[in-house]
Amino acid sequence: MEQRGLGRLRLPGLLALLAALGVLVVQAALGRRRAQTPRISASRNQNLWPLPVTVRTTPRLLYLSPGNFFFGHSPTSKAGPSCAVLQEAFRRKMELQKLEVSVIMDPECDSFPSITSDESCEYLCHGNRLFTKLLVTDSRARSLETFSQLIYQHSSGTFTANESNIVDSPRFPHRGILIDTSRHFLPIKTILKTLDAMAFNKFNVLHWHIVDDQSFPYQSITFPELSNKGSYSLSHVYTPNDVRTVIEYARFRGIRVLPEFDSPGHTASWGKGQKDVLTPCYHSREPSGTFGPINPILNSTYSFLSKLFKEISTVFPDKFIHLGGDEVDFHCWYETLLTTPLHPFLKPLALEVGVEVVLDMISAMKKTSIVWQEVFDDEGKLTPGTVVQVWKKRNFHMKLRKITAAGFPVIISAPWYLDLISYGEDWTGYYLVEPLNFAGTPEQKQLVIGGEACIWGEYVDATNLTPRLWPRASAVGERLWSHQDVTDLEDAYRRLIRHRCRMVGRGIAAQPLLPGYCEHEGRM
Amino acid sequence: MEQRGLGRLRLPGLLALLAALGVLVVQAALGRRRAQTPRISASRNQNLWPLPVTVRTTPRLLYLSPGNFFFGHSPTSKAGPSCAVLQEAFRRKMELQKLEVSVIMDPECDSFPSITSDESCEYLCHGNRLFTKLLVTDSRARSLETFSQLIYQHSSGTFTANESNIVDSPRFPHRGILIDTSRHFLPIKTILKTLDAMAFNKFNVLHWHIVDDQSFPYQSITFPELSNKGSYSLSHVYTPNDVRTVIEYARFRGIRVLPEFDSPGHTASWGKGQKDVLTPCYHSREPSGTFGPINPILNSTYSFLSKLFKEISTVFPDKFIHLGGDEVDFHCWYETLLTTPLHPFLKPLALEVGVEVVLDMISAMKKTSIVWQEVFDDEGKLTPGTVVQVWKKRNFHMKLRKITAAGFPVIISAPWYLDLISYGEDWTGYYLVEPLNFAGTPEQKQLVIGGEACIWGEYVDATNLTPRLWPRASAVGERLWSHQDVTDLEDAYRRLIRHRCRMVGRGIAAQPLLPGYCEHEGRM
Repeated sequence: MEQRGLGRLRLPGLLALLAALGVLVVQAALGRRRAQTPRISASRNQNLWPLPVTVRTTPRLLYLSPGNFFFGHSPTSKAGPSCAVLQEAFRRKMELQKLEVSVIMDPECDSFPSITSDESCEYLCHGNRLFTKLLVTDSRARSLETFSQLIYQHSSGTFTANESNIVDSPRFPHRGILIDTSRHFLPIKTILKTLDAMAFNKFNVLHWHIVDDQSFPYQSITFPELSNKGSYSLSHVYTPNDVRTVIEYARFRGIRVLPEFDSPGHTASWGKGQKDVLTPCYHSREPSGTFGPINPILNSTYSFLSKLFKEISTVFPDKFIHLGGDEVDFHCWYETLLTTPLHPFLKPLALEVGVEVVLDMISAMKKTSIVWQEVFDDEGKLTPGTVVQVWKKRNFHMKLRKITAAGFPVIISAPWYLDLISYGEDWTGYYLVEPLNFAGTPEQKQLVIGGEACIWGEYVDATNLTPRLWPRASAVGERLWSHQDVTDLEDAYRRLIRHRCRMVGRGIAAQPLLPGYCEHEGRM
Repeated sequence: MEQRGLGRLRLPGLLALLAALGVLVVQAALGRRRAQTPRISASRNQNLWPLPVTVRTTPRLLYLSPGNFFFGHSPTSKAGPSCAVLQEAFRRKMELQKLEVSVIMDPECDSFPSITSDESCEYLCHGNRLFTKLLVTDSRARSLETFSQLIYQHSSGTFTANESNIVDSPRFPHRGILIDTSRHFLPIKTILKTLDAMAFNKFNVLHWHIVDDQSFPYQSITFPELSNKGSYSLSHVYTPNDVRTVIEYARFRGIRVLPEFDSPGHTASWGKGQKDVLTPCYHSREPSGTFGPINPILNSTYSFLSKLFKEISTVFPDKFIHLGGDEVDFHCWYETLLTTPLHPFLKPLALEVGVEVVLDMISAMKKTSIVWQEVFDDEGKLTPGTVVQVWKKRNFHMKLRKITAAGFPVIISAPWYLDLISYGEDWTGYYLVEPLNFAGTPEQKQLVIGGEACIWGEYVDATNLTPRLWPRASAVGERLWSHQDVTDLEDAYRRLIRHRCRMVGRGIAAQPLLPGYCEHEGRM
């Protein structure tokens, strides 16, 4: 049975109160130091998701009671009051009273998060009945999420937390959610809500599969006809401003936005607004009227792709661009090549060259490419450093071994296709996947940079995305964040039930895990 | 690809306008008459769900343009302005301008809907460019729903409808949705939203499985401890006022509320607030500390049940009460009986008598009982007229044959357990079920009074109920309303896609059927 959820932090009310009082007091310096906890206990871990590396709590209850509110930065902190990411995180999490906060932030605080961002974090919360002090060392506010999970609201309305200290860092640096805005358009509101939920689960990559066969909602500045003609309608479009909104909202939550412009297959919608970009298919040497993948034998294709990816590499600040490359129907390409003056032996060359040219393009833009596993399977030469994403479930551990043996970094999504649904408690299956359970050297294991839970859009839109994604994706979140040994299902159940109710209380319509209730569920 | 949805009727805006103008004009009498349509066409059926018996439309477009609004009753109509059900239905559907409406309503208009309510309906919508006249013969506003499905909003904002005439009636009188508020509590808002969606799909029974093992949210006036102790929490309770709200909201939509108080199994939550009502289980002749079904050998049980069902029969106006009777664990009963002074030969008698006594109770209250199929299987003597609900999918057509051969009316839900989910387009499976596809006489077929789509609550609450239920339940809705021959999947696809978008436009978060979009989906 689901437990009563945590009392929801009444942020808006407190925020208003604080604004009225004008309380923003910079506190005295408190340097980085190790925690000294008088007694050690792990009894309150039942509220945490994902489980941190080390949590020490004592039975001492600290009252975060109404009254003065202290919210500030250490003068010795490299991150000052100008560190907007932290300011925002405080606004979201820390609107509690009588709470003195000291922070040491990573100097890259306000920059975009990256695969090399230091996500290790620590906090120490101590004090007495009159005074609570929180010392945070953190570049992405991850420890503030953890701290917020340890806060209780008593029936009296008082917020309390046990004296506690956490030291934490993620197991994998790439922890993503894939959303698909081509099969169904997702309103910006839904994407931002997803980013909220991602932050609650310490995910750090939004893999935005933004275009596909069905529609092209990305409004390109260079090629506006792509969305003018290729979107479902002119109100099913992401304007440059929409894209900026998503990227900025993500940045404030320590989340990277990884754009995927899948090619050369999955591009039917591209052909509507861009002449000659697709390969005309032939039937018995006559054009059949249908189109195949991106046409690799025209110069215009490369000129178009170069300009488009140039724009994309500017619009999306992330170091990575996902180029897709999955499920290419080669049949049409071969047929077409038969009708061109190209000599037969040039055929495979044209295909390979096509992909290589694009990979080189991305490389020249100082970006790193991510591709689906077929590109590794089909092509001999992948630019070194290209990341391969494994999505086919069958024998995926074998595939991990092969790709890492060839020296390529890899992202796993094969066991985590959350759009595939079934009756009952399927989260345990996602939870018990061990990403590194393949034969390989430590160097090979090191090449597994993380994984992604994918919620493809064939049967998913704004009406059902959130309950279908959460808390099932939370299982993946803990697998990618927490230690390899965190596999106790019974313990995970207890914590996930609470975590799910906490998400519900925070406005995320996460579906139930089993019969029961949450204390705060009326807002759904 | 999903089509653009219909323009949503801007009800709130129009309502405000009408209130400002004070336009409520009673029109001249127009008697009941048969439609005379100048030309016949079925081209606009693609907007209708479920498909009516007869639809005749002509290409003539009638403009429902801004300006005067005529909204009234025929003086010869048996239903006058006092018929609140119709007034409300008009408010919901007919806030269109320049629309003259004449209505002949069933004299039972404002009474509670019942299994014998005449649901046949007809309307004729004709006129010219300046004037539109709608003649309605209808007791439950079903034809107004149909008419609203034929209204288009042009890009100019003007509402139009083709000249049209429908004559309609349902195939089965019992068309239900089962909701389960015990495994998870559903807020009243969610239940009302479900009633809205039911009306859009011409369902007429809300089967409210209100209590079960997990919780007892029904606040009894006679036995308040049942919910005080047996609910998840005191905020997870349906007060008498909540129940009245649901019944009244349903009545205005021509929907019956059928309460189910499942016993003697599925009653664990009853034991928390009512002493001795459950059978104590024994292990090796010692009490095991656990409890089984309702205790059939204590007089206090029958006195309690009699008072409880007396209250229920008053609170819920429907002629039927669902008594459950499924999945009873007889083991505990037998064990207990071994420890009582009852002679072994009395054991089966006690069990049978228990059920019979309750059935007789309900009968004495002038109500009809509905029971799950196990009661038919396990018991020799069922009170004649007791309705049997078939829920086990395996060989359910065989079971229908047996039950109807024994002369009992039957409700089918076996093939329509919508809480069981799978990837992809499972609605077609629900759609293609033929309820009367069993060997039996016409009299037996006549005993099939309808069916129910069930959305059991183990994994369903307010976060995911609506998208999981709709439009999958719409498939069941058409099966139970429309003619047996309406089985063309391609045609159903076209109509259901539009119907789904229409529901989305009306604020029902019905999930998508396949890749595509709706014109109005931003509100989700």
